[in-house]
Amino acid sequence: MEFITDTIEKVSTLLVGQGLQIILLVIGFLIVSKIGKKVISSSLTKNVGAVSPGRMKTLEKMLQNVFSYVLFFVFIVMLLGIFNFDLAPLIAAAGVVGLAIGFGAQGLVSDVVTGFFLLLERQVEVDEYVTAGGYDGIVEEVGLRTTQIRSFDGTLNFVPNRNIAGVSNHSRGSMRALVDIGISYDDNIEEAMAVLQKVCDEFKENDDRFIDGPDVLGVQSFGSSDIVLRVLGKTENMKQWAVERDMRKRIKEALDEANIEIPYPHQVYIKKDNE
Amino acid sequence: MEFITDTIEKVSTLLVGQGLQIILLVIGFLIVSKIGKKVISSSLTKNVGAVSPGRMKTLEKMLQNVFSYVLFFVFIVMLLGIFNFDLAPLIAAAGVVGLAIGFGAQGLVSDVVTGFFLLLERQVEVDEYVTAGGYDGIVEEVGLRTTQIRSFDGTLNFVPNRNIAGVSNHSRGSMRALVDIGISYDDNIEEAMAVLQKVCDEFKENDDRFIDGPDVLGVQSFGSSDIVLRVLGKTENMKQWAVERDMRKRIKEALDEANIEIPYPHQVYIKKDNE
Amino acid sequence: MEFITDTIEKVSTLLVGQGLQIILLVIGFLIVSKIGKKVISSSLTKNVGAVSPGRMKTLEKMLQNVFSYVLFFVFIVMLLGIFNFDLAPLIAAAGVVGLAIGFGAQGLVSDVVTGFFLLLERQVEVDEYVTAGGYDGIVEEVGLRTTQIRSFDGTLNFVPNRNIAGVSNHSRGSMRALVDIGISYDDNIEEAMAVLQKVCDEFKENDDRFIDGPDVLGVQSFGSSDIVLRVLGKTENMKQWAVERDMRKRIKEALDEANIEIPYPHQVYIKKDNE
Amino acid sequence: MEFITDTIEKVSTLLVGQGLQIILLVIGFLIVSKIGKKVISSSLTKNVGAVSPGRMKTLEKMLQNVFSYVLFFVFIVMLLGIFNFDLAPLIAAAGVVGLAIGFGAQGLVSDVVTGFFLLLERQVEVDEYVTAGGYDGIVEEVGLRTTQIRSFDGTLNFVPNRNIAGVSNHSRGSMRALVDIGISYDDNIEEAMAVLQKVCDEFKENDDRFIDGPDVLGVQSFGSSDIVLRVLGKTENMKQWAVERDMRKRIKEALDEANIEIPYPHQVYIKKDNE
Amino acid sequence: MEFITDTIEKVSTLLVGQGLQIILLVIGFLIVSKIGKKVISSSLTKNVGAVSPGRMKTLEKMLQNVFSYVLFFVFIVMLLGIFNFDLAPLIAAAGVVGLAIGFGAQGLVSDVVTGFFLLLERQVEVDEYVTAGGYDGIVEEVGLRTTQIRSFDGTLNFVPNRNIAGVSNHSRGSMRALVDIGISYDDNIEEAMAVLQKVCDEFKENDDRFIDGPDVLGVQSFGSSDIVLRVLGKTENMKQWAVERDMRKRIKEALDEANIEIPYPHQVYIKKDNE
Amino acid sequence: MEFITDTIEKVSTLLVGQGLQIILLVIGFLIVSKIGKKVISSSLTKNVGAVSPGRMKTLEKMLQNVFSYVLFFVFIVMLLGIFNFDLAPLIAAAGVVGLAIGFGAQGLVSDVVTGFFLLLERQVEVDEYVTAGGYDGIVEEVGLRTTQIRSFDGTLNFVPNRNIAGVSNHSRGSMRALVDIGISYDDNIEEAMAVLQKVCDEFKENDDRFIDGPDVLGVQSFGSSDIVLRVLGKTENMKQWAVERDMRKRIKEALDEANIEIPYPHQVYIKKDNE
Amino acid sequence: MEFITDTIEKVSTLLVGQGLQIILLVIGFLIVSKIGKKVISSSLTKNVGAVSPGRMKTLEKMLQNVFSYVLFFVFIVMLLGIFNFDLAPLIAAAGVVGLAIGFGAQGLVSDVVTGFFLLLERQVEVDEYVTAGGYDGIVEEVGLRTTQIRSFDGTLNFVPNRNIAGVSNHSRGSMRALVDIGISYDDNIEEAMAVLQKVCDEFKENDDRFIDGPDVLGVQSFGSSDIVLRVLGKTENMKQWAVERDMRKRIKEALDEANIEIPYPHQVYIKKDNE
Repeated sequence: MEFITDTIEKVSTLLVGQGLQIILLVIGFLIVSKIGKKVISSSLTKNVGAVSPGRMKTLEKMLQNVFSYVLFFVFIVMLLGIFNFDLAPLIAAAGVVGLAIGFGAQGLVSDVVTGFFLLLERQVEVDEYVTAGGYDGIVEEVGLRTTQIRSFDGTLNFVPNRNIAGVSNHSRGSMRALVDIGISYDDNIEEAMAVLQKVCDEFKENDDRFIDGPDVLGVQSFGSSDIVLRVLGKTENMKQWAVERDMRKRIKEALDEANIEIPYPHQVYIKKDNE
Repeated sequence: MEFITDTIEKVSTLLVGQGLQIILLVIGFLIVSKIGKKVISSSLTKNVGAVSPGRMKTLEKMLQNVFSYVLFFVFIVMLLGIFNFDLAPLIAAAGVVGLAIGFGAQGLVSDVVTGFFLLLERQVEVDEYVTAGGYDGIVEEVGLRTTQIRSFDGTLNFVPNRNIAGVSNHSRGSMRALVDIGISYDDNIEEAMAVLQKVCDEFKENDDRFIDGPDVLGVQSFGSSDIVLRVLGKTENMKQWAVERDMRKRIKEALDEANIEIPYPHQVYIKKDNE
Repeated sequence: MEFITDTIEKVSTLLVGQGLQIILLVIGFLIVSKIGKKVISSSLTKNVGAVSPGRMKTLEKMLQNVFSYVLFFVFIVMLLGIFNFDLAPLIAAAGVVGLAIGFGAQGLVSDVVTGFFLLLERQVEVDEYVTAGGYDGIVEEVGLRTTQIRSFDGTLNFVPNRNIAGVSNHSRGSMRALVDIGISYDDNIEEAMAVLQKVCDEFKENDDRFIDGPDVLGVQSFGSSDIVLRVLGKTENMKQWAVERDMRKRIKEALDEANIEIPYPHQVYIKKDNE
Repeated sequence: MEFITDTIEKVSTLLVGQGLQIILLVIGFLIVSKIGKKVISSSLTKNVGAVSPGRMKTLEKMLQNVFSYVLFFVFIVMLLGIFNFDLAPLIAAAGVVGLAIGFGAQGLVSDVVTGFFLLLERQVEVDEYVTAGGYDGIVEEVGLRTTQIRSFDGTLNFVPNRNIAGVSNHSRGSMRALVDIGISYDDNIEEAMAVLQKVCDEFKENDDRFIDGPDVLGVQSFGSSDIVLRVLGKTENMKQWAVERDMRKRIKEALDEANIEIPYPHQVYIKKDNE
Repeated sequence: MEFITDTIEKVSTLLVGQGLQIILLVIGFLIVSKIGKKVISSSLTKNVGAVSPGRMKTLEKMLQNVFSYVLFFVFIVMLLGIFNFDLAPLIAAAGVVGLAIGFGAQGLVSDVVTGFFLLLERQVEVDEYVTAGGYDGIVEEVGLRTTQIRSFDGTLNFVPNRNIAGVSNHSRGSMRALVDIGISYDDNIEEAMAVLQKVCDEFKENDDRFIDGPDVLGVQSFGSSDIVLRVLGKTENMKQWAVERDMRKRIKEALDEANIEIPYPHQVYIKKDNE
Repeated sequence: MEFITDTIEKVSTLLVGQGLQIILLVIGFLIVSKIGKKVISSSLTKNVGAVSPGRMKTLEKMLQNVFSYVLFFVFIVMLLGIFNFDLAPLIAAAGVVGLAIGFGAQGLVSDVVTGFFLLLERQVEVDEYVTAGGYDGIVEEVGLRTTQIRSFDGTLNFVPNRNIAGVSNHSRGSMRALVDIGISYDDNIEEAMAVLQKVCDEFKENDDRFIDGPDVLGVQSFGSSDIVLRVLGKTENMKQWAVERDMRKRIKEALDEANIEIPYPHQVYIKKDNE
Repeated sequence: MEFITDTIEKVSTLLVGQGLQIILLVIGFLIVSKIGKKVISSSLTKNVGAVSPGRMKTLEKMLQNVFSYVLFFVFIVMLLGIFNFDLAPLIAAAGVVGLAIGFGAQGLVSDVVTGFFLLLERQVEVDEYVTAGGYDGIVEEVGLRTTQIRSFDGTLNFVPNRNIAGVSNHSRGSMRALVDIGISYDDNIEEAMAVLQKVCDEFKENDDRFIDGPDVLGVQSFGSSDIVLRVLGKTENMKQWAVERDMRKRIKEALDEANIEIPYPHQVYIKKDNE
């Protein structure tokens, strides 16, 4: 009988110790959880001040969720530890799962991290014209994992964020309009530049799509059969193509009027005689 | 004899403790299993709302299966732990297997993760025309590991999902029809653009494959021996090629009528005299 | 003497405990082994239903073998553990071997995993014409590690399966026959298309290698010195080249008859005078 | 009752030991924390002497923050260790988190490390003209994670620092102005070089954008249809393009005056006769 | 003195236990060693049946050596374990060495693994003409680490096996002889094909280097200034080049006889008049 | 009260043991520290004999610093171990930090290692002309992390050392001067070579920038419209370009004198008639 | 006082046990050290028989050094283990250092491993002409970390051994001399081949730099404006270029004599009329 009382005694001793430990554990975790969540939200508000409140909430919730899951797992495992379970298998399983995430889903994690910063640093916004990950077009959606870009030919491109190594955002400020004109080696450079500058001055006065210029820069290069003159200006965003097209047409007409020839048929052009 | 009773005593003490532990363990695992499965299905329904119910079920089952296997393994190992087996070899074996998955089958895991999101985010659907992983064609099947794309020349391409770094989906909205026409440097730009615009207007009125346009944009560039004019429109999906072919034919005819020449033989073309 | 009896006593206590543990261990492993093998074969039959029975057996055996080896190793180590050996060195050795497999033979494991799925998903079969891993030809053998592809020039290519990132299988369905014809800018498009369509109709009626078409699509592009017309059809698998050759010959003859010229000598062609 | 006093006794013994350990621990951590922070700030001032005080403070704070978080975590865990909690789960969780950082966010860490050195070594500064990560333009901002470069066409490029493998800074010193002129094989080299040198001397005297030169180097190469002469000089930073344009214009005029021809129409140039 | 006898007693107890353990250990290792070596040699004979006996022996010995070293290390460490040494340092050292092999010498291990399979699967043999790892030539030696390939220009290339991602073996079966002939757009296709077929028939009858063909396939393509006809045949291995050379010569002569011209001077060819 | 004396007794026993251990520890670490530093400096002087004393000191100090930090950390941890603290968290934290270094800052470590050897092996020195990491220019600074290369166009390039996979040092010995001259197929080779050799002999005698040669090598190749002759010599370092320019000019003049023509206008060159 | 004697007693027991262990340890390490060094030198002499004795010694010493360092570290740690120090920190520190080597200095280890085999397998030797790692030239030094290659233009290239993925050694045996000659489509092939063969026979008889051939192979290809004939021979090492130059000159002369023209001016060549 002594054996039984002994057992009871031991078990109860154990239980008393365990009870104390459990209480300590619960208190500890409540505190850590509170502090952790506060740290998350405060460090977010500090560092991410410029983000819209809606997006902020999403980020905060996501991070706190992950934190809670991890904490809960640790709590469960330590609780089991108090009852003298061997915790190795649980921890090992968690480790392997962690590794699996690290290796196999490396790309996914990388997508999310990049996506997070794409949003945070506002590198791209919906309806902007960007070049990213080899795709070129209007952004339709920026997600944590993928960014959707609508090409100009109508294609919808899904780009994993990890592939976005550098974003070229073409919707952030005024754009350049640039036209290169080749004149003949026999033409007078001075004269041609005067004609071009006159066209530029017309545009400068009449076309308010121009923010700066346009102006004739000078002799850009000696081409294989022409002297290349460059005209440069700054236009409103997304207006550069239309402006360039209008300038090309006007310049051609002005040069025609001034009798300066663009040395066009660079290649032989002979009609068949015997037909 | 005292030795035997002692042994019995010890064993029974052990057994009592073990019995308690086993009961605790079983209860714990039942709870964890229940909660885990619920978390999986609820987080799926929350995040993956847009997916069809059938696909949903498959995903749910797959995830719960993996969860069950891992849990079962952990349960077995902890049970053995209660009987004082040294669990290190089992855990080590599991770890090595986990590493093997991580390293060798890295590609496979990566395939599945990408495939999961291809399905989830509905980036491609069967019968859509896409460009992905360097292949171009109609999607025949989207699997967890491979996507099957039928090229236009009849080839069936099996593309591992991990190689799909960005999907260009050409079946999501109206497409662009674009025709570039080169006219001679001697021709009048104004006149040529008028002819082209007239053709465009014809199409606009009569061809309901066009959703927007077509219209003449202007002087796209100064070519080596021609001035390139650009015509642009928006058509129904997959109709762009047929539309472009029809426009090319009609434009050629219209320019012929207006006596505007496409400066065609860019290269010398002389018959042999001595034959 | 008391010392000796004491030792015996302790040893026997130990042995009794060990005996119990060994029995438990053996029973446990027998059960796990049985269940494991069943899980393997049942999950194979479920997921791999479409594979031929012979290949099935091979896969099953291979997987069960690996499973047995691992289980046996674990069993041995746990048995030693019962006799209080320090198991760390054995496990460490196993771990290092596992790592070595993971790192050095990463490629090999990757080969086998990919090969497994090549077989399972029947992406390539012997005697099919495929493009894979940069090689192009008829498959001679699909192995777990390498695939053998016979190029059309007679070369036998051994391709490690890991290098097969996407398979283009040209033997799965009817193939496209496509012929592009350039006519002169001076010729009448309408007329030329009528001639081509007549040729197409001939083939449609008389040539049963065609499954669909051929038909004239229209003006594919404005070439540098010709207007390119496209003819398209669908043929039986592997017949596309012969069909294209026959069509080219017939089209040339038909155009000659209709006096429509393929603007051939794109380049100057003058005999030396002073010889 | 003896059992209870015994328990109290044991617990109190434990508590005394624990009390001592806690005191030791607290003292230890205070010391380590002090020393660590000092080491950080002193090693920063030693190694990073050239950095502006503001930037210095930011770096110091950032590093001390990371140090504090890690130390605090270790303190918490060791405190728990004194109360005999099994610390494995906490440590394992931390390890997995560490691994996750290592793998998934590898790019992020790499960005920050590179960004740190970009700042520290002052490789790029705002308003400098640089080529980095495949982008070319004026630096608008250098951050720890991304560098913003404004291309000359107006595009704003966000470049992750990790992609900056080598920076070409075009705003650190005087730049080269280089003009290659092709003269005919029939012209006299000596004479042409004299004409060019005269132009160079003009610039040398009148143009103070030149820091060194310009001068004629000699016969750079035998071109396919011209002998290429090279003129070289050193100009103020960012003035090289304007200088080159002015020189090209002046050289063309000087050669015209000296009747030396740039063998321009490298390609055939014949007007159509039958128009 | 009681202390001394006590110590002796304890030590002897220990020694008895240790003696038992050592005996067990030795027996165990002898068995494992025997079994392991048998498994190696039997699994080799099973899987590698086709390899020559000499090579077999080398492989067997190599594998058994590695197995013995590992086993011996484990034995030593476990022996030390019996004497209550802390085995952690030894195991850690072994682990670090293992890692070093895994990381630094990753390439070496990879070389050996690939080399093993190159030999085993007989992908290349000495004196065969292969393309592997970017090198092209006759194999002079296949080693476990490097393969030596003698290029046709006399260079001896040492190729690390890991770089051999796919072997093109040109010495495994008959090779293709292929000659493309361009005839003028003015020539009669039918007639030209008849002439070519006659040449082919000559070769078929008289040249026993041909295993199959040669035959005229038809119109392969419309070239820029010629219609390309293709002739195809199968020859003995390594005879394809000589055969192609002979066919080219004979075809040129046959076409000359039939007055069918290969439209040779695709480029202008005018003598200078003023010399 | 017996309990208190008991506690004291135990604590003091503990303290005595701990005192002994601490003394042993301190002595051990002093010895190890001494030996370690000596090994470092002696192995440096042995292996790095050729390095300047200043650089030597820097390297020695750096390595000893790292050694001291690691040793100090180990000492602290073992000291804590003597007081029975659970050291796992500290070690785990250190391990995670180690991993973080390994992964995230992998590039940094790699930079330093490469930089160390760049310095040690004196592969590049300041003011040398090198090609490294895709950059080309004069070395301005060689650092442990980055090398600064000044391009000839004035750009300052910061190259991370890890990107320097192979250095081409153009300032280590005499350089080659090579001029290829194309003569007409109608000219006499013998005669042309004699003229060239005469020019070479002139240079050999009068130009002491030549260390070896120059000499005419012979017919280097049959060009598309000229026979290419090659002249080769060895010049003082960095003089090769000036020498080549001088030779080109002299050769042109010599050939003109000998009436041997460089067949220059490879391309058509016709003036417009109707202007 | 009983307490003190007790302590002494325990300590002495401990010391006796420790003494025994230390003696065992020292003996064990002496044996292992001896055996290890013997294994190293014997396995070197067995496997590396062909290496020069000097190089042998260096390798042997290097390997034995590394072995000694590791062994010494293990010895120290196990010694500490006997005095009941907690060895975890030391081992952890060693592990982190090991990892650091593995990750950061991965390239360095890889260099040494490759360098070892470059030396061992005698792939390159000083003064040989090789192509390796993208560099081409004469080997000046082969080191464990870098190989120095002197380019023909005088540049000294430092190539890290890890970048040497395949060595092309051009100094191992006789080299090929190959000359391709284009004759006109109007010339008689038979006749031209006879002329070429006569030239070849001259060289065969008179030029002892030829080891085999030269001989005319036949019609290598139909060029765009010439029929290409190939001449092939084998020459002494490094003599191939001089031989080819001599043959080209002689062939040109022989063809001139036989009045067979190399159809040289593939491009138009017209003098300007109005000069």
